[in-house]
Amino acid sequence: MALNKLPYRGTRDFFPKDKRVRDYLFAVMTKTAESFGYESYDGPLLEEVELYKAKSGEELINEQIYSFTDRGERFVAIRPEMTPTLARMVAQVHRESSKPLRWFSIPNLMRYEKPQRGRVREHWQLNCDVFGSPGRLGEVEILQVAVELFQAYGASSSHFEILLNDRAIADAVFKTIMKATGEQTHRLYKIVDKAKKVSEEALQKMVGEVGLDSNAQDIFYSYLQLSTFDDVKIFLEKNNQAEISSQFDSFIEFTKKANITEFLKYDPTIVRGLDYYTGIVFEIYDKHPDNRRALCGGGAYANLLQIFNEDPLPGVGFGLGDVTLRDFLEVHNLLPNFDIPVNDILLTFQEEDGLEATIKLAQFLRKNNLKVVTGLEALKIKKVFPTAEKKGVKFVTLMGSDELAKNQIQLKNLASKEQHTLDLNDLESILKLIKA
Amino acid sequence: MALNKLPYRGTRDFFPKDKRVRDYLFAVMTKTAESFGYESYDGPLLEEVELYKAKSGEELINEQIYSFTDRGERFVAIRPEMTPTLARMVAQVHRESSKPLRWFSIPNLMRYEKPQRGRVREHWQLNCDVFGSPGRLGEVEILQVAVELFQAYGASSSHFEILLNDRAIADAVFKTIMKATGEQTHRLYKIVDKAKKVSEEALQKMVGEVGLDSNAQDIFYSYLQLSTFDDVKIFLEKNNQAEISSQFDSFIEFTKKANITEFLKYDPTIVRGLDYYTGIVFEIYDKHPDNRRALCGGGAYANLLQIFNEDPLPGVGFGLGDVTLRDFLEVHNLLPNFDIPVNDILLTFQEEDGLEATIKLAQFLRKNNLKVVTGLEALKIKKVFPTAEKKGVKFVTLMGSDELAKNQIQLKNLASKEQHTLDLNDLESILKLIKA
Repeated sequence: MALNKLPYRGTRDFFPKDKRVRDYLFAVMTKTAESFGYESYDGPLLEEVELYKAKSGEELINEQIYSFTDRGERFVAIRPEMTPTLARMVAQVHRESSKPLRWFSIPNLMRYEKPQRGRVREHWQLNCDVFGSPGRLGEVEILQVAVELFQAYGASSSHFEILLNDRAIADAVFKTIMKATGEQTHRLYKIVDKAKKVSEEALQKMVGEVGLDSNAQDIFYSYLQLSTFDDVKIFLEKNNQAEISSQFDSFIEFTKKANITEFLKYDPTIVRGLDYYTGIVFEIYDKHPDNRRALCGGGAYANLLQIFNEDPLPGVGFGLGDVTLRDFLEVHNLLPNFDIPVNDILLTFQEEDGLEATIKLAQFLRKNNLKVVTGLEALKIKKVFPTAEKKGVKFVTLMGSDELAKNQIQLKNLASKEQHTLDLNDLESILKLIKA
Repeated sequence: MALNKLPYRGTRDFFPKDKRVRDYLFAVMTKTAESFGYESYDGPLLEEVELYKAKSGEELINEQIYSFTDRGERFVAIRPEMTPTLARMVAQVHRESSKPLRWFSIPNLMRYEKPQRGRVREHWQLNCDVFGSPGRLGEVEILQVAVELFQAYGASSSHFEILLNDRAIADAVFKTIMKATGEQTHRLYKIVDKAKKVSEEALQKMVGEVGLDSNAQDIFYSYLQLSTFDDVKIFLEKNNQAEISSQFDSFIEFTKKANITEFLKYDPTIVRGLDYYTGIVFEIYDKHPDNRRALCGGGAYANLLQIFNEDPLPGVGFGLGDVTLRDFLEVHNLLPNFDIPVNDILLTFQEEDGLEATIKLAQFLRKNNLKVVTGLEALKIKKVFPTAEKKGVKFVTLMGSDELAKNQIQLKNLASKEQHTLDLNDLESILKLIKA
């Protein structure tokens, strides 16, 4: 029986044209991160499951992780996310590193998902993180990186927005203003996380089950109504949270200095699950009506190194997956066309004896940093130009019996249609015309 | 209990300086492959185990593969090599692709190895393959790619050599000249594969057990003595194999035209196991006495698509791992130093109020394609230059109370030691000095 030619469920084959798209996505990520002085790192594909248990939510460990026992009885998993690996690596070196530590990575990750639009089992994810930055400046910088990244793809505030909250605000509202217990706060976070996805009725039912008094419930519903930074300020001050309000204010002031305020929108429902975040939390949302979804999420955390018994080191970061990013760029027509490769020149010969000269010319041109596609057998003239088109070259050479006899080639510029007869003993002249 | 900070056994954490080495290795691979018009592809991390069973040796499946059953009862494995994925992908598209099909990839692969020098559990491997090239030209081209790749790292024929054989020759010797049966041939391949690693005595014992007559045994030992292309020619012609000899000769002629003969050495013991190879087989060997080992292996194959019930499509390729390559470059002192990152400029301020101007200047410089490291808090002068050194910048800016009052910065070129006082309202002049 013949084997299946299709990839494993939920994974992708990257044929050259798909790989060129991915290479473009990654090149822009790398260029943007490096423009901020972020340094690239990577970790192993497998980690011990203990590491994920210590950091991640239950759903991930129980249902979504690719875990198995290795031949040496270690319980390991294919990395479903990069943050635990990052934390493990930072824990090794943070004491002797100068701060802030700015790192990025674009690992492949696997989760056992039910494949659907924007969701696959293997994806790549840009992770940008900054550790040990003073005050709220790391938070501002990470938002700047995200904004400049989207701008580098050609996107603007008409295409995306950053929905943002601060865990310190949510905590103050639930614990201090509403006087919720730890258990109630835990449940409120879960409810907030779902607030936009459920009906008004379902929301009220969930809130009713938390066991809050009617005053606390009223505060909770007014919190959910907040939709601007001014709203938040007024709400917090009215409820005697001037300290929290002024801390958030100073963060907002910095975002103004960094010119990113136009992208930011306060959203009380952004809390990023029951995750390890302690400062800002945010999600970048696509504004396109056909693709209303989060493209990217991140936030600030204080205790990522705790599981390694290391002193706290504040950090802030975000993750952006390749699948959602590609969907975003496609829906907004921002993705360049990568159907055809980019090469410099196609060398052809129309008589078998042209091979030797072609091999030598190709070698010379490659040494001069050109991308050279060589025909390996005689190619009929009528096939030369369709081949040149498929290979995305700017020049072609031809070598028929006349040229062969005189040790010459015809060099054709496909854009200008100019054609030159050139001597193969004068390689420099050929190069000059190509590089002109 | 605190978690372990070290990576899973046999895998590596790539801290920024290790990642820069890897990025360099991959950049040279990519540039070389693309200079020949090879197009980049990638496949999934997991494949169904059936695929590896159909193609690979028993040892790989039984002992070295990371396999497990997924939550949907599929028996899958982390890819231990790229060729089966490549074959699966080529099988999907080869009918409508123009030939030759030139592809390369640099995937991460996992094998359950006992970690030791040059051998880890997760490594990356360049795979270059060409399909559907006429005659022996694909074989020559693949060798050219390998040679030019090593040259691009600064290596020459004093650093490495290509030990080469042709499966057609080994087949002719065993089956036609020695008249060995299929089963005997199978055992002879296994013996040849080990010939250089065992003692003369052990070799004779193994050969004795095959059950060959003494004439066949003599032929086998003379075959193992062949060490030049001329030797092979004489040997084959003496044994009435003029056809095989002339086919191999035409291959050798092409390697002369391609200027790679100086790197090639005939080696009768290179057969690449009982693999799927059908034409040339080769291994690139390090010539350094401290690192005498194979760096890279490859060969030509005719039937890779058979497991998918596709028509035969001849191909040839090689694989080069990142670990052995790095060892090779290090032992020959060919690896550049990547301890320090490369950035363009470090922006600092010595008074807290300098932050806003710094953020704006940084934004402007990044938009002009510079790699900008910004201090996020006031930095004492004496800390500026050590920080600049760690960040690998060419320029630093300073902003004390004088400059702050006048909206100016000091720009210092670290190489020339030149220092300029510049106005922050005149960003273009700042840029001009940096880009000069």
